[in-house]
Amino acid sequence: MSTIVMKFGGTSVADLNIMQNAILKIVEEVKNKKKVIVVVSAMGSTTDHLVRKVKEVSAIYDAREYDAILSTGENISASIMALLLQNEGINSRSWQGWQIPIITTDNHSNARILDISTKNLEKRFTNGMQVAIVAGFQGISNKNRITTLGRGGSDTSAVALAAAICAERCDIYTDVDGIYTTDPRITASAKKLDKISYEEMLELASLGAKVLHTRSVELAMQYKVKVRVLNSFKKGSGTLLCDEEDMMEKKVVSGITFSKNEAKLTLLGVKDKPGVAGIVFDCLSRANINVDMIIQNISDNDLTDVTFSCPTDQVDMAKESLEEGKKNNIIEYRKLDVDRQVSKISIVGIGMRSHSGIAKKMFKTLGDENINIKVISTSEIKISVLLERKYLELAIQSLHEAFELSKV
Amino acid sequence: MSTIVMKFGGTSVADLNIMQNAILKIVEEVKNKKKVIVVVSAMGSTTDHLVRKVKEVSAIYDAREYDAILSTGENISASIMALLLQNEGINSRSWQGWQIPIITTDNHSNARILDISTKNLEKRFTNGMQVAIVAGFQGISNKNRITTLGRGGSDTSAVALAAAICAERCDIYTDVDGIYTTDPRITASAKKLDKISYEEMLELASLGAKVLHTRSVELAMQYKVKVRVLNSFKKGSGTLLCDEEDMMEKKVVSGITFSKNEAKLTLLGVKDKPGVAGIVFDCLSRANINVDMIIQNISDNDLTDVTFSCPTDQVDMAKESLEEGKKNNIIEYRKLDVDRQVSKISIVGIGMRSHSGIAKKMFKTLGDENINIKVISTSEIKISVLLERKYLELAIQSLHEAFELSKV
Repeated sequence: MSTIVMKFGGTSVADLNIMQNAILKIVEEVKNKKKVIVVVSAMGSTTDHLVRKVKEVSAIYDAREYDAILSTGENISASIMALLLQNEGINSRSWQGWQIPIITTDNHSNARILDISTKNLEKRFTNGMQVAIVAGFQGISNKNRITTLGRGGSDTSAVALAAAICAERCDIYTDVDGIYTTDPRITASAKKLDKISYEEMLELASLGAKVLHTRSVELAMQYKVKVRVLNSFKKGSGTLLCDEEDMMEKKVVSGITFSKNEAKLTLLGVKDKPGVAGIVFDCLSRANINVDMIIQNISDNDLTDVTFSCPTDQVDMAKESLEEGKKNNIIEYRKLDVDRQVSKISIVGIGMRSHSGIAKKMFKTLGDENINIKVISTSEIKISVLLERKYLELAIQSLHEAFELSKV
Repeated sequence: MSTIVMKFGGTSVADLNIMQNAILKIVEEVKNKKKVIVVVSAMGSTTDHLVRKVKEVSAIYDAREYDAILSTGENISASIMALLLQNEGINSRSWQGWQIPIITTDNHSNARILDISTKNLEKRFTNGMQVAIVAGFQGISNKNRITTLGRGGSDTSAVALAAAICAERCDIYTDVDGIYTTDPRITASAKKLDKISYEEMLELASLGAKVLHTRSVELAMQYKVKVRVLNSFKKGSGTLLCDEEDMMEKKVVSGITFSKNEAKLTLLGVKDKPGVAGIVFDCLSRANINVDMIIQNISDNDLTDVTFSCPTDQVDMAKESLEEGKKNNIIEYRKLDVDRQVSKISIVGIGMRSHSGIAKKMFKTLGDENINIKVISTSEIKISVLLERKYLELAIQSLHEAFELSKV
């Protein structure tokens, strides 16, 4: 009898009625004679509500207490889910992180899973338990305190449990049908992918396609967990995450992802000497700015320009910290240029490794539409560009067509 | 450096503003160089809200999941309280039942504390912790599952912790000034008692003066814990619970307590033979009726009458179960008389043991007011009567005066 892990996110457990969709999926797996581990998120907006509660007390807070408070959301949904399954005559119980236990680092609010003991779970399965409902997003540190894994961390709980118990597969139920070539709200020709490699998913997850927690994809890749992304409200085979070798045909480009609200900041007239960039980005990191793309132009008369991008809502903080740095003679520059009207588009595909001409095709497609590229950055399997925000939809549609993504 | 336990109930932690009263009291004790253990209830109506959530899922539910859900209320208030104390610069942390641990029976939803290990708490006090905030009302069973102690159980958590750690005293903060001779809303001459014996408090607690959880008073008596009942919103010395021997002068009557909505049921023409009463009350207990006073009149022609009282809202269930019993030939009786318009009044005092004439004085006082007594029952330190509900206030006021309770 094999074990499967099923994870239901916040929108899939928003209320008792909605939970019935999950119950149907779970009951089906029990009928298929699977031992089932269900990982749940907190119901609907519970976590946001708890976060606000903490922030009401203090802007700066003890992350250990924050974690203890946030973890209650998943504890409640796990117990509610267990009760609903018991109503269906299924032998089911809830498990909190410390009861399993799921051991994590003590990096509170952003802990990483170190070890999962499956002994207690397996013993209970032997004694008749059919479904274990595990509270996602949480664990305990070696100091016996409750930790949380960061927002979206329930995906990671699910994949880690699947890895620990050598599950047949790990099904992540969401409110979308799977992973798409791009956002279907932007182009109706966006297609659901049947398969995607871990590496591509990693680029997509970290680039803003908020379907899966990045860390869960890393873990899945590391332990070769067969992860499927499915819709909890519909039937369907979803998207399977798998090894590159398991992809029958390696498509050149698998998907297009984007981040709408980006800003481009340029420091003009920066001294071109060793250590300067270090000082600039140290300054920004202290201000907690999520710097994304970084470009440094060629030097002219020992002066250079440094450009970087960050989310629009962090521009003011970034400006302030750079101007502060200038005032205190920590950073020297002539002028700071800010463009708040840009978006980032990335094309991702493992096939890029073996195919040349992808960048050229991307730039030509955008050029043909008269879209100016402001910044470019590349990795092994992705190319990202910044462009004027008003061209975002047009650019995605053109690239989707140029790379024939509707034909997958 | 001695340890004290302070317990704050739901109304004392209803929101962040109200919690500030508790914070002031705690900070004061820290300044007095006390090691402080704070026990908290859930904030305001949180527990009621969680109970409703469970009952929405199912009328009959797994008490283990119910306990896991309910315990989250105290977990949140404990962490919030710890954060508030940290804001004041106090080294404080929250403790959930399983972290201490507080070991209980596995009689879920109504568990009893079996053992409290104070090792972890003491270690942390040695390492600089000034205040431990303990989530009340909860523990873990030997099966490692979360249990709760029944409504009002946080009082019991507090007293049990005080006993386990040999605390100097246990202060129970509520929204009243202490224990009164009777309800001040009924007679303005009601006086706060400075001291009350454990035994008297036990009678008062179980008779409807909902200030303290009955089990907490039993524990306090057993382990000689010095318990004080105080108002968290005011200054004041409250009421001290102590041993009978520590009461300077044993008053004959210490207090008058009452239960407004009682009903009197009489089975007329019951066969007077052994085992009949057993069958009647077995029948009622199966229907979960909280039978209180029981009286059986003398026999006449082998037939007798059996009278008992129960809360008004259980009358219909009681009637139904007795009529069902008659239909099925389990119980024989001629007629069932129901009086839904009665109240119960009790006078309580350890002095009754050594004073005679208390009952006579009580009955005469009521007689002088033309109040008819319907049922009488007595214990070593209390006398209870049932009377028409419309006389309740008058009866309390007359008795309060007759026993000179305003002169305490």
